[in-house]
Amino acid sequence: MIKYPNGNKISNNSKSDPRNKDVVSYGDRGMNLENRINLSNDYYREKDIAIIYKKPTPIQVLHIHNTPSGSNKIDDAYFLTPSTTDYNGIYKGRYIDFEAKETRNKTSFPLQNLHAHQIEHLMRITKHGGIGFLIISFVTLNKTFLLDAKIVYEHFVGEKKSIPFTVVEEKGYLIKEGYVLPLDYLKSVDIAYFNE
Amino acid sequence: MIKYPNGNKISNNSKSDPRNKDVVSYGDRGMNLENRINLSNDYYREKDIAIIYKKPTPIQVLHIHNTPSGSNKIDDAYFLTPSTTDYNGIYKGRYIDFEAKETRNKTSFPLQNLHAHQIEHLMRITKHGGIGFLIISFVTLNKTFLLDAKIVYEHFVGEKKSIPFTVVEEKGYLIKEGYVLPLDYLKSVDIAYFNE
Repeated sequence: MIKYPNGNKISNNSKSDPRNKDVVSYGDRGMNLENRINLSNDYYREKDIAIIYKKPTPIQVLHIHNTPSGSNKIDDAYFLTPSTTDYNGIYKGRYIDFEAKETRNKTSFPLQNLHAHQIEHLMRITKHGGIGFLIISFVTLNKTFLLDAKIVYEHFVGEKKSIPFTVVEEKGYLIKEGYVLPLDYLKSVDIAYFNE
Repeated sequence: MIKYPNGNKISNNSKSDPRNKDVVSYGDRGMNLENRINLSNDYYREKDIAIIYKKPTPIQVLHIHNTPSGSNKIDDAYFLTPSTTDYNGIYKGRYIDFEAKETRNKTSFPLQNLHAHQIEHLMRITKHGGIGFLIISFVTLNKTFLLDAKIVYEHFVGEKKSIPFTVVEEKGYLIKEGYVLPLDYLKSVDIAYFNE
Protein backbone atom coordinates (compact mmCIF):
# COMPACT_ATOMS: atom_id res chain seq x y z
CA MET A 1 0.00 0.00 0.00
CA ILE A 2 1.36 3.35 -1.02
CA LYS A 3 0.78 6.21 1.34
CA TYR A 4 0.52 9.45 -0.57
CA PRO A 5 1.96 12.51 1.09
CA ASN A 6 -0.58 14.96 2.28
CA GLY A 7 -0.49 18.13 4.26
CA ASN A 8 -1.69 19.29 7.63
CA LYS A 9 -2.59 22.88 8.16
CA ILE A 10 -1.60 24.13 11.59
CA SER A 11 -3.83 26.68 13.23
CA ASN A 12 -2.08 29.91 14.13
CA ASN A 13 -3.38 29.63 17.67
CA SER A 14 -2.38 26.04 18.23
CA LYS A 15 0.99 25.81 19.85
CA SER A 16 0.48 22.15 20.62
CA ASP A 17 3.20 19.76 19.70
CA PRO A 18 1.69 17.66 16.89
CA ARG A 19 3.89 14.71 17.87
CA ASN A 20 1.95 14.01 21.04
CA LYS A 21 0.53 10.53 20.74
CA ASP A 22 -2.09 10.92 23.41
CA VAL A 23 -3.61 13.97 21.81
CA VAL A 24 -6.92 15.22 23.15
CA SER A 25 -9.24 17.19 20.92
CA TYR A 26 -11.37 19.74 22.73
CA GLY A 27 -13.24 21.62 20.06
CA ASP A 28 -15.79 23.82 21.77
CA ARG A 29 -15.60 21.94 25.07
CA GLY A 30 -12.75 24.01 26.41
CA MET A 31 -9.06 24.65 26.27
CA ASN A 32 -6.38 22.04 26.16
CA LEU A 33 -3.91 21.67 29.01
CA GLU A 34 -1.15 23.64 27.32
CA ASN A 35 -3.38 26.66 26.72
CA ARG A 36 -4.68 26.53 30.28
CA ILE A 37 -1.15 26.47 31.67
CA ASN A 38 0.00 29.25 29.34
CA LEU A 39 -2.91 31.46 30.43
CA SER A 40 -2.17 30.66 34.07
CA ASN A 41 1.48 31.61 33.55
CA ASP A 42 0.37 34.88 31.91
CA TYR A 43 -1.78 35.54 34.99
CA TYR A 44 1.07 34.76 37.39
CA ARG A 45 3.41 37.07 35.48
CA GLU A 46 0.88 39.91 35.28
CA LYS A 47 0.28 39.67 39.02
CA ASP A 48 4.05 39.38 39.57
CA ILE A 49 3.56 36.09 41.40
CA ALA A 50 5.96 33.96 39.34
CA ILE A 51 7.98 34.11 36.13
CA ILE A 52 7.29 30.84 34.37
CA TYR A 53 7.26 30.23 30.61
CA LYS A 54 6.74 27.37 28.23
CA LYS A 55 9.88 26.61 26.28
CA PRO A 56 9.52 26.67 22.51
CA THR A 57 9.21 23.32 20.74
CA PRO A 58 12.68 22.38 19.48
CA ILE A 59 12.84 22.48 15.70
CA GLN A 60 15.82 21.75 13.46
CA VAL A 61 15.83 24.26 10.62
CA LEU A 62 17.38 22.92 7.44
CA HIS A 63 16.52 25.59 4.91
CA ILE A 64 15.41 29.22 4.92
CA HIS A 65 13.84 30.89 1.93
CA ASN A 66 14.49 34.63 1.68
CA THR A 67 11.25 36.16 0.46
CA PRO A 68 11.22 39.34 -1.71
CA SER A 69 9.82 41.26 1.28
CA GLY A 70 13.00 40.47 3.17
CA SER A 71 11.46 38.10 5.70
CA ASN A 72 12.85 34.66 6.34
CA LYS A 73 10.47 31.83 5.59
CA ILE A 74 11.46 28.40 6.87
CA ASP A 75 10.63 25.86 4.18
CA ASP A 76 12.48 22.80 5.42
CA ALA A 77 12.61 21.79 9.07
CA TYR A 78 11.66 19.00 11.42
CA PHE A 79 10.71 18.50 15.06
CA LEU A 80 13.45 17.42 17.48
CA THR A 81 12.96 15.38 20.65
CA PRO A 82 12.93 17.84 23.57
CA SER A 83 15.97 17.47 25.89
CA THR A 84 14.12 18.68 28.92
CA THR A 85 10.62 19.57 30.07
CA ASP A 86 8.22 22.11 28.62
CA TYR A 87 8.00 24.61 31.48
CA ASN A 88 10.43 26.29 33.84
CA GLY A 89 10.90 29.49 35.76
CA ILE A 90 11.07 31.02 39.20
CA TYR A 91 8.56 31.14 42.07
CA LYS A 92 9.25 32.47 45.59
CA GLY A 93 12.95 32.45 44.76
CA ARG A 94 12.89 28.75 43.84
CA TYR A 95 13.62 27.18 40.48
CA ILE A 96 10.47 25.47 39.14
CA ASP A 97 10.50 22.84 36.40
CA PHE A 98 7.66 20.70 35.12
CA GLU A 99 6.14 18.75 32.29
CA ALA A 100 2.40 18.72 31.58
CA LYS A 101 0.49 15.82 30.05
CA GLU A 102 -3.09 14.95 29.30
CA THR A 103 -4.58 11.50 29.16
CA ARG A 104 -7.99 10.09 28.28
CA ASN A 105 -7.22 7.07 30.42
CA LYS A 106 -9.47 6.91 33.49
CA THR A 107 -7.60 4.47 35.68
CA SER A 108 -3.93 5.37 35.21
CA PHE A 109 -1.39 7.71 33.64
CA PRO A 110 0.62 5.81 30.98
CA LEU A 111 4.35 6.52 31.41
CA GLN A 112 4.92 6.22 27.67
CA ASN A 113 3.69 9.83 27.59
CA LEU A 114 7.09 10.85 28.98
CA HIS A 115 10.62 10.48 27.65
CA ALA A 116 13.05 8.79 30.04
CA HIS A 117 15.38 11.81 29.89
CA GLN A 118 12.51 14.09 30.93
CA ILE A 119 12.00 12.08 34.11
CA GLU A 120 15.77 12.03 34.72
CA HIS A 121 15.91 15.77 34.10
CA LEU A 122 13.23 16.40 36.74
CA MET A 123 15.11 14.25 39.25
CA ARG A 124 18.32 16.18 38.56
CA ILE A 125 16.43 19.43 39.18
CA THR A 126 15.16 18.10 42.51
CA LYS A 127 18.69 17.03 43.46
CA HIS A 128 19.98 20.55 42.73
CA GLY A 129 17.41 22.15 45.02
CA GLY A 130 14.75 22.92 42.46
CA ILE A 131 11.08 21.97 42.42
CA GLY A 132 10.30 19.33 39.80
CA PHE A 133 6.90 17.85 39.09
CA LEU A 134 4.38 16.67 36.56
CA ILE A 135 0.98 18.17 35.82
CA ILE A 136 -1.34 15.36 34.79
CA SER A 137 -4.76 16.09 33.39
CA PHE A 138 -7.25 13.22 33.39
CA VAL A 139 -9.45 14.66 30.66
CA THR A 140 -12.43 12.33 30.93
CA LEU A 141 -12.41 12.65 34.72
CA ASN A 142 -12.07 16.44 34.52
CA LYS A 143 -9.33 16.41 37.14
CA THR A 144 -5.81 17.79 36.98
CA PHE A 145 -3.08 16.95 39.49
CA LEU A 146 0.40 18.03 40.44
CA LEU A 147 2.59 14.98 41.07
CA ASP A 148 6.11 15.29 42.48
CA ALA A 149 8.96 14.08 40.25
CA LYS A 150 10.03 11.48 42.83
CA ILE A 151 6.72 9.60 42.57
CA VAL A 152 7.03 9.57 38.78
CA TYR A 153 10.65 8.42 39.04
CA GLU A 154 9.81 5.58 41.45
CA HIS A 155 7.27 4.17 39.00
CA PHE A 156 9.66 4.66 36.11
CA VAL A 157 12.63 2.86 37.71
CA GLY A 158 10.21 0.22 39.05
CA GLU A 159 9.52 -0.50 35.37
CA LYS A 160 5.87 0.26 35.79
CA LYS A 161 4.02 1.00 32.57
CA SER A 162 1.76 3.53 34.24
CA ILE A 163 0.92 5.33 37.45
CA PRO A 164 -2.49 4.25 38.81
CA PHE A 165 -5.04 7.03 39.21
CA THR A 166 -5.43 6.06 42.87
CA VAL A 167 -1.71 6.78 43.40
CA VAL A 168 -1.99 10.14 41.61
CA GLU A 169 -5.01 10.97 43.77
CA GLU A 170 -3.28 9.92 46.99
CA LYS A 171 0.26 11.25 46.43
CA GLY A 172 -0.59 14.15 44.12
CA TYR A 173 -2.33 17.47 44.66
CA LEU A 174 -5.56 18.31 42.90
CA ILE A 175 -5.19 21.61 41.03
CA LYS A 176 -7.88 24.22 41.54
CA GLU A 177 -9.49 25.28 38.26
CA GLY A 178 -11.05 28.61 37.47
CA TYR A 179 -11.98 31.06 34.79
CA VAL A 180 -9.49 33.93 35.05
CA LEU A 181 -6.83 31.61 36.40
CA PRO A 182 -7.54 28.35 34.53
CA LEU A 183 -5.16 26.17 36.58
CA ASP A 184 -3.90 27.51 39.89
CA TYR A 185 -1.06 25.01 40.06
CA LEU A 186 1.09 27.31 42.22
CA LYS A 187 -1.46 26.89 45.00
CA SER A 188 -0.68 23.18 44.81
CA VAL A 189 3.05 24.03 44.77
CA ASP A 190 2.50 26.04 47.98
CA ILE A 191 0.92 23.03 49.68
CA ALA A 192 3.36 20.46 48.29
CA TYR A 193 6.67 22.34 48.67
CA PHE A 194 6.15 25.37 50.91
CA ASN A 195 3.89 23.74 53.55
CA GLU A 196 1.36 26.52 53.15
CA MET B 1 14.74 47.27 -7.88
CA ILE B 2 13.31 43.78 -7.62
CA LYS B 3 14.87 41.47 -5.12
CA TYR B 4 14.59 37.90 -6.29
CA PRO B 5 14.02 35.29 -3.66
CA ASN B 6 16.92 33.05 -2.97
CA GLY B 7 17.64 30.33 -0.46
CA ASN B 8 20.00 29.89 2.44
CA LYS B 9 21.15 26.43 3.36
CA ILE B 10 21.45 26.04 7.12
CA SER B 11 24.22 23.79 8.36
CA ASN B 12 23.03 20.92 10.51
CA ASN B 13 25.46 21.92 13.23
CA SER B 14 24.56 25.58 13.29
CA LYS B 15 22.00 26.28 15.96
CA SER B 16 22.55 30.01 15.66
CA ASP B 17 19.57 32.23 15.26
CA PRO B 18 19.87 33.61 11.73
CA ARG B 19 18.06 36.78 12.73
CA ASN B 20 20.98 38.08 14.76
CA LYS B 21 22.04 41.34 13.20
CA ASP B 22 25.48 41.44 14.73
CA VAL B 23 26.45 38.03 13.40
CA VAL B 24 30.04 36.97 13.74
CA SER B 25 31.47 34.46 11.32
CA TYR B 26 34.19 32.27 12.76
CA GLY B 27 35.02 29.74 10.08
CA ASP B 28 38.13 27.85 11.17
CA ARG B 29 39.09 30.42 13.80
CA GLY B 30 37.04 28.86 16.53
CA MET B 31 33.59 28.40 17.91
CA ASN B 32 30.94 31.03 18.21
CA LEU B 33 29.63 32.12 21.59
CA GLU B 34 26.53 29.94 21.46
CA ASN B 35 28.53 26.78 20.81
CA ARG B 36 30.99 27.65 23.55
CA ILE B 37 28.18 28.16 26.05
CA ASN B 38 26.40 24.99 24.96
CA LEU B 39 29.61 22.96 25.43
CA SER B 40 30.16 24.60 28.82
CA ASN B 41 26.61 23.71 29.84
CA ASP B 42 27.21 20.11 28.69
CA TYR B 43 30.33 20.06 30.88
CA TYR B 44 28.47 21.50 33.89
CA ARG B 45 25.72 18.90 33.50
CA GLU B 46 28.13 16.00 33.05
CA LYS B 47 30.01 17.03 36.20
CA ASP B 48 26.66 17.59 37.96
CA ILE B 49 27.62 21.21 38.71
CA ALA B 50 24.56 22.90 37.22
CA ILE B 51 21.55 22.11 35.05
CA ILE B 52 21.44 24.87 32.45
CA TYR B 53 20.11 24.61 28.91
CA LYS B 54 19.64 26.85 25.90
CA LYS B 55 15.99 27.28 25.07
CA PRO B 56 14.99 26.36 21.52
CA THR B 57 14.53 29.22 19.06
CA PRO B 58 10.80 29.99 18.94
CA ILE B 59 9.32 29.06 15.59
CA GLN B 60 5.72 29.41 14.43
CA VAL B 61 4.82 26.34 12.40
CA LEU B 62 2.19 27.01 9.75
CA HIS B 63 2.23 23.81 7.75
CA ILE B 64 3.42 20.25 8.17
CA HIS B 65 3.90 17.90 5.26
CA ASN B 66 3.34 14.23 6.07
CA THR B 67 5.99 12.34 4.14
CA PRO B 68 5.35 8.81 2.85
CA SER B 69 7.81 7.48 5.46
CA GLY B 70 5.50 8.79 8.16
CA SER B 71 7.74 11.58 9.40
CA ASN B 72 6.52 15.14 9.74
CA LYS B 73 8.37 17.64 7.59
CA ILE B 74 7.75 21.30 8.36
CA ASP B 75 7.49 23.15 5.06
CA ASP B 76 6.07 26.49 6.18
CA ALA B 77 7.19 28.28 9.31
CA TYR B 78 8.78 31.47 10.51
CA PHE B 79 10.92 32.73 13.38
CA LEU B 80 9.17 34.42 16.30
CA THR B 81 10.67 37.09 18.53
CA PRO B 82 11.82 35.34 21.72
CA SER B 83 9.77 36.33 24.81
CA THR B 84 12.62 35.75 27.17
CA THR B 85 16.34 34.99 27.20
CA ASP B 86 18.17 32.10 25.61
CA TYR B 87 19.48 30.30 28.68
CA ASN B 88 18.13 29.30 32.06
CA GLY B 89 18.51 26.65 34.69
CA ILE B 90 19.61 25.93 38.22
CA TYR B 91 22.97 26.36 39.98
CA LYS B 92 23.63 25.88 43.70
CA GLY B 93 19.88 25.90 44.26
CA ARG B 94 19.46 29.27 42.57
CA TYR B 95 17.53 30.07 39.41
CA ILE B 96 19.93 31.29 36.70
CA ASP B 97 18.82 33.24 33.63
CA PHE B 98 20.94 34.92 30.98
CA GLU B 99 21.26 36.11 27.43
CA ALA B 100 24.52 35.83 25.46
CA LYS B 101 25.63 38.23 22.74
CA GLU B 102 28.68 38.77 20.59
CA THR B 103 29.88 42.04 19.18
CA ARG B 104 32.70 43.05 16.84
CA ASN B 105 32.61 46.50 18.40
CA LYS B 106 35.81 47.27 20.34
CA THR B 107 34.70 50.20 22.45
CA SER B 108 31.15 49.37 23.52
CA PHE B 109 28.32 46.87 23.51
CA PRO B 110 25.41 48.18 21.38
CA LEU B 111 22.12 47.74 23.23
CA GLN B 112 20.26 47.20 19.96
CA ASN B 113 21.52 43.62 20.28
CA LEU B 114 18.89 43.10 22.96
CA HIS B 115 15.11 43.29 22.94
CA ALA B 116 13.59 45.59 25.57
CA HIS B 117 11.49 42.73 26.94
CA GLN B 118 14.62 40.61 27.39
CA ILE B 119 16.15 43.27 29.65
CA GLU B 120 12.85 43.61 31.52
CA HIS B 121 12.65 39.84 31.85
CA LEU B 122 16.12 39.71 33.45
CA MET B 123 15.16 42.45 35.91
CA ARG B 124 11.99 40.56 36.85
CA ILE B 125 14.11 37.44 37.48
CA THR B 126 16.41 39.44 39.75
CA LYS B 127 13.41 40.83 41.62
CA HIS B 128 12.10 37.30 42.20
CA GLY B 129 15.36 36.16 43.74
CA GLY B 130 16.98 34.70 40.67
CA ILE B 131 20.36 35.47 39.12
CA GLY B 132 20.07 37.42 35.86
CA PHE B 133 22.92 38.55 33.69
CA LEU B 134 24.33 39.03 30.22
CA ILE B 135 27.31 37.26 28.70
CA ILE B 136 28.99 39.67 26.30
CA SER B 137 31.73 38.49 23.99
CA PHE B 138 33.94 41.19 22.46
CA VAL B 139 35.07 39.07 19.54
CA THR B 140 37.85 41.29 18.19
CA LEU B 141 39.20 41.84 21.72
CA ASN B 142 38.98 38.12 22.49
CA LYS B 143 37.34 38.84 25.85
CA THR B 144 34.05 37.61 27.27
CA PHE B 145 32.36 39.11 30.32
CA LEU B 146 29.49 38.42 32.67
CA LEU B 147 27.53 41.62 33.32
CA ASP B 148 24.74 41.78 35.90
CA ALA B 149 21.25 42.56 34.61
CA LYS B 150 21.06 45.73 36.75
CA ILE B 151 23.96 47.36 34.91
CA VAL B 152 22.34 46.56 31.58
CA TYR B 153 19.01 47.87 32.82
CA GLU B 154 20.52 51.13 34.07
CA HIS B 155 21.96 51.86 30.63
CA PHE B 156 18.74 50.82 28.95
CA VAL B 157 16.44 53.06 31.04
CA GLY B 158 19.05 55.84 30.79
CA GLU B 159 18.37 55.68 27.05
CA LYS B 160 21.99 54.90 26.32
CA LYS B 161 22.59 53.36 22.91
CA SER B 162 25.40 51.19 24.21
CA ILE B 163 27.40 50.13 27.25
CA PRO B 164 31.01 51.33 27.03
CA PHE B 165 33.67 48.63 27.12
CA THR B 166 35.27 50.39 30.10
CA VAL B 167 32.01 49.94 32.06
CA VAL B 168 31.79 46.26 31.10
CA GLU B 169 35.42 45.81 32.18
CA GLU B 170 34.89 47.64 35.48
CA LYS B 171 31.45 46.36 36.52
CA GLY B 172 31.56 43.00 34.76
CA TYR B 173 33.49 39.80 35.40
CA LEU B 174 35.94 38.45 32.84
CA ILE B 175 35.07 34.85 32.03
CA LYS B 176 37.86 32.29 32.12
CA GLU B 177 38.24 30.45 28.83
CA GLY B 178 39.59 26.97 28.31
CA TYR B 179 39.60 23.94 26.11
CA VAL B 180 37.48 21.31 27.86
CA LEU B 181 35.37 24.00 29.50
CA PRO B 182 35.24 26.72 26.82
CA LEU B 183 33.65 29.40 29.02
CA ASP B 184 33.70 28.91 32.78
CA TYR B 185 31.01 31.49 33.38
CA LEU B 186 29.84 29.82 36.60
CA LYS B 187 33.22 30.73 38.13
CA SER B 188 32.24 34.35 37.41
CA VAL B 189 28.79 33.67 38.89
CA ASP B 190 30.51 32.41 42.05
CA ILE B 191 32.47 35.66 42.37
CA ALA B 192 29.60 37.96 41.39
CA TYR B 193 26.72 36.34 43.30
CA PHE B 194 28.11 33.89 45.85
CA ASN B 195 31.09 35.96 47.09
CA GLU B 196 33.42 33.04 46.48
